[in-house]
Amino acid sequence: MIYTQLGTDKYVLRLESGDDILQSVRQFATAKKLSAGLLEGIGSLSKVKLGHYDFKTRKYSYETFEDDLEILNLSGNIAIMNREPLSHVHVTLGRRDFSVIGGHMDEGSSANMVEIGIWKLQGNLVKAKDDQIGLNVLQLARRI
Amino acid sequence: MIYTQLGTDKYVLRLESGDDILQSVRQFATAKKLSAGLLEGIGSLSKVKLGHYDFKTRKYSYETFEDDLEILNLSGNIAIMNREPLSHVHVTLGRRDFSVIGGHMDEGSSANMVEIGIWKLQGNLVKAKDDQIGLNVLQLARRI
Amino acid sequence: MIYTQLGTDKYVLRLESGDDILQSVRQFATAKKLSAGLLEGIGSLSKVKLGHYDFKTRKYSYETFEDDLEILNLSGNIAIMNREPLSHVHVTLGRRDFSVIGGHMDEGSSANMVEIGIWKLQGNLVKAKDDQIGLNVLQLARRI
Repeated sequence: MIYTQLGTDKYVLRLESGDDILQSVRQFATAKKLSAGLLEGIGSLSKVKLGHYDFKTRKYSYETFEDDLEILNLSGNIAIMNREPLSHVHVTLGRRDFSVIGGHMDEGSSANMVEIGIWKLQGNLVKAKDDQIGLNVLQLARRI
Repeated sequence: MIYTQLGTDKYVLRLESGDDILQSVRQFATAKKLSAGLLEGIGSLSKVKLGHYDFKTRKYSYETFEDDLEILNLSGNIAIMNREPLSHVHVTLGRRDFSVIGGHMDEGSSANMVEIGIWKLQGNLVKAKDDQIGLNVLQLARRI
Repeated sequence: MIYTQLGTDKYVLRLESGDDILQSVRQFATAKKLSAGLLEGIGSLSKVKLGHYDFKTRKYSYETFEDDLEILNLSGNIAIMNREPLSHVHVTLGRRDFSVIGGHMDEGSSANMVEIGIWKLQGNLVKAKDDQIGLNVLQLARRI
């Protein structure tokens, strides 16, 4: 993974062949001590483990795809949970016939080449397990 | 809907079970007097009304989907029209078999859990109805 | 193409009927002397040339689609290569039956109406051809 900082609060990363995308984002957040961020990316990967969450059974189902897939969009955020950076990322992927698959991105991906922009946010985003819905969710102080 | 402000011009929102996504964004824009913004989000929803616009007939066709769908990407902007905040949002959604649907998002959605980042922009984005194409479009002062 | 600047580092563009999306972004980058940027957009187009890159053969395969397609998400970045602005854009597109296609966006598209937000980044993003993978890739100074 190579990167540059552009201005006080923005980074651009390039992941290289074989990089695990989710691990790389977390590793970057750890190295830069990011406690809050938003991210967007495009690129290509050769392997990905996608998840889909069922809110009734409160379980993820997973499937792994191995093929050159265009990353049409990779979106997500960086928060802190149990004092460690946690990155939540969803991906939309394009096949060679231009059909599209996608889901929640788990560890276990392998980048071909990925370009990611990260906006560092001031302050902290904190996540905690919500026992009612079974997911790690953002703890935000204000309500409308 | 819960939220936090991070820095002078960024917000992160978490929509909760049953929240109408488009209404929530507009409600947030009204509460914060946002007259220009960009937004990006991921998450999951249980119901969504998608639209597709036909530029020949100048009409939206709609279909409502009810299922746990991963929000792979939610993108859009906040502008002002007739002195009220107007939010234009498109969504890409992942099914449990990892196939993907998507469209223009209308009111009538129901969130499971949605994380949205909002960039407040300086100044105003103003929309007005364009009778030729039949849509509300951004009125922008400069041309290239 | 019409546009406005909102704050020191953000632009919003609206592409009009018939505008080539990739050419418009590059034209805008040239006019504004942008040497680094991130972009996000939504809208609709009537024609698009999509690409998929095969990392084994190191070749793009292309297909052109002509229909009113919702732009569910358009993501990418602006860099400099050989002293000229270069824009790398991927798109996710929704058909009238709400199925989705997508890929790397080449020149040869025709907008119906597209709304694009551009974040100007401080400094430069530079691309150069990587002979090993066969693509133009970001040259970034730091490594983790």
